[in-house]
Amino acid sequence: MKENPPGYRSVLCELISMVKEVFDLLDTLSELIENFKKGNIRALARIISKIENEDPQKDELLKSIFTMTGKAFVVGVTGSPGAGKSSLVDRMTAYLRKRGETVGIIAVDPTSPFSGGALLGDRIRMQDHAVDRGVYIRSMGTRGSLGGLARTTKEVVKVLDAFGYQWVIVETVGVGQAELDIMHVADTTMVILTPGAGDSIQTIKAGIMEIADIFVVNKCDLPGADRVALEISQMLDLQGEVLEWRPPVVQVSTLDDRGMKNLMNEVEKHRSYLAESGLLEANREDRARKETLEIVDYRWQKLVNAQLNYKGYVNDILNRVTGKKTDPYTAADAILRYIIEDSGLGKDR
Amino acid sequence: MKENPPGYRSVLCELISMVKEVFDLLDTLSELIENFKKGNIRALARIISKIENEDPQKDELLKSIFTMTGKAFVVGVTGSPGAGKSSLVDRMTAYLRKRGETVGIIAVDPTSPFSGGALLGDRIRMQDHAVDRGVYIRSMGTRGSLGGLARTTKEVVKVLDAFGYQWVIVETVGVGQAELDIMHVADTTMVILTPGAGDSIQTIKAGIMEIADIFVVNKCDLPGADRVALEISQMLDLQGEVLEWRPPVVQVSTLDDRGMKNLMNEVEKHRSYLAESGLLEANREDRARKETLEIVDYRWQKLVNAQLNYKGYVNDILNRVTGKKTDPYTAADAILRYIIEDSGLGKDR
Repeated sequence: MKENPPGYRSVLCELISMVKEVFDLLDTLSELIENFKKGNIRALARIISKIENEDPQKDELLKSIFTMTGKAFVVGVTGSPGAGKSSLVDRMTAYLRKRGETVGIIAVDPTSPFSGGALLGDRIRMQDHAVDRGVYIRSMGTRGSLGGLARTTKEVVKVLDAFGYQWVIVETVGVGQAELDIMHVADTTMVILTPGAGDSIQTIKAGIMEIADIFVVNKCDLPGADRVALEISQMLDLQGEVLEWRPPVVQVSTLDDRGMKNLMNEVEKHRSYLAESGLLEANREDRARKETLEIVDYRWQKLVNAQLNYKGYVNDILNRVTGKKTDPYTAADAILRYIIEDSGLGKDR
Repeated sequence: MKENPPGYRSVLCELISMVKEVFDLLDTLSELIENFKKGNIRALARIISKIENEDPQKDELLKSIFTMTGKAFVVGVTGSPGAGKSSLVDRMTAYLRKRGETVGIIAVDPTSPFSGGALLGDRIRMQDHAVDRGVYIRSMGTRGSLGGLARTTKEVVKVLDAFGYQWVIVETVGVGQAELDIMHVADTTMVILTPGAGDSIQTIKAGIMEIADIFVVNKCDLPGADRVALEISQMLDLQGEVLEWRPPVVQVSTLDDRGMKNLMNEVEKHRSYLAESGLLEANREDRARKETLEIVDYRWQKLVNAQLNYKGYVNDILNRVTGKKTDPYTAADAILRYIIEDSGLGKDR
């Protein structure tokens, strides 16, 4: 055998990695799902990326994992920027890991300066968990619309649930309707406040107060924490008669874990309340129903948009409306009929 | 002739009114529209009521008046409660009436303590206009959803426009997405602020600042008015480069009409700007297009809701999802297909 020329090894290595890449591309959907079911973290990450990127295989993927969902307990954490949401999620995760439970974390922050959220995953606070196989951290960035973000987040919660994480924690900034929508995915929702000046309950949006199952007053070492806690209690007193579950107000400090055990006890209490009252099941059924109808609506909108995106009959009719040659009602009837006809979905009958 | 028994006259009167009522009921749609076209105020009021009550004839009515629309200039007036919106509308109306122009006013206030808004129409401030045939005032109350309110308001704007009012003024509280949606009906939108403590521009929602074509600082006799005006100007400076139309800031006092002439001049300037830039036409075409697609969407939702409201195939499938017997994606496909089939609209092809 003649001797190999120098550099042969590095060329071979490169070739191998190229072949690997090709195999990756050939990697079929069923293989991906199989690896996912085996607990392969890389398969998990790839599936989440496909969902984030609105991959054409997305629906197929979500279909095939659906029956594996419904086991995780989902906790939502919301509050103003600077309230310490990430630190709280960090300390909760540490607490749950000590008990040997697994945690999937989704950080949703469309206002984050870290574009795409990539850096967020590297943040120092979460460093301890980064090498822990029982924790998975994913940041969701600003891609697409906020409405799209809410949908994608719900889908990623399902993926983490199906993968087997016992807890899924969703962290989101408490501003706007889209964020409230995201929180509907949670079984237990925590609203975090701080004794900081701008965080008086008067300035917190009403919609956010209403979704709280547990109020957390973070930075309880700062002056004013008691007052914030009192204000929340007083607000709850005003509606006390009608509340089946009165949200507890828990003071914590993520600096020294003060109050963390208390907080986690309240989470367990809320979980028991949901289970015993039948609400856990009822809420989840309600969500599944809504979600299905959202998909119906999404598919319908796709049919409509497909018509709008090319110069055809629907745009012709719309031009007749703007030209006052027909009225919006007659036009809408014609468009509805045309889209339904053109979809080909009503033909078989 | 024998003498009539006593009370004969009152019985006859009652009979006549009963016959009138029967005639009212027999009053056909075409007669109603005919009277509307003749300028009969009662026909106008009845048509608006039919729209507010979601009468089955509503679409038919709007269809038949559509070609008569597009002549009125629509002004939107928004601002916090207490900013003096109604007084401003009142003074604008007086100004326009002096010039001999006709004005239709729609007061939208879902937060108004006057339930149904009936009392609002009687308010003292508007008393002068109540007997003036050149002014029509209509309050829209809290019936139905806010989304529904936005739709109904747009429809009533059309009716007033078709009736021949040269100006249509829509007054609405500046809170929430639905109110912003209502403002999209306006050619010129005024945002009212006051020197009052809570009305600093920092506290005004960003969305509302963005829809302003004209800023009005009301109660300019109070201290702080100059500061509010300056704050707005500074904010506009920050984005000055990209603005084709820089919203003027006009100080007024509705107590003594100070600044009112100036304000109305700015309205005329904005109107000319819209006309000359082609935006007036482009905006209206854009609105007609969106409106038509909203009706398409509304009709589709009606098809969906009809299925949800009875125990049939669609609810069966949804139950299969909540029972984890199928996934939301497969279910959504089946539901979409079923609704389209069942609509019967795709059959003719």
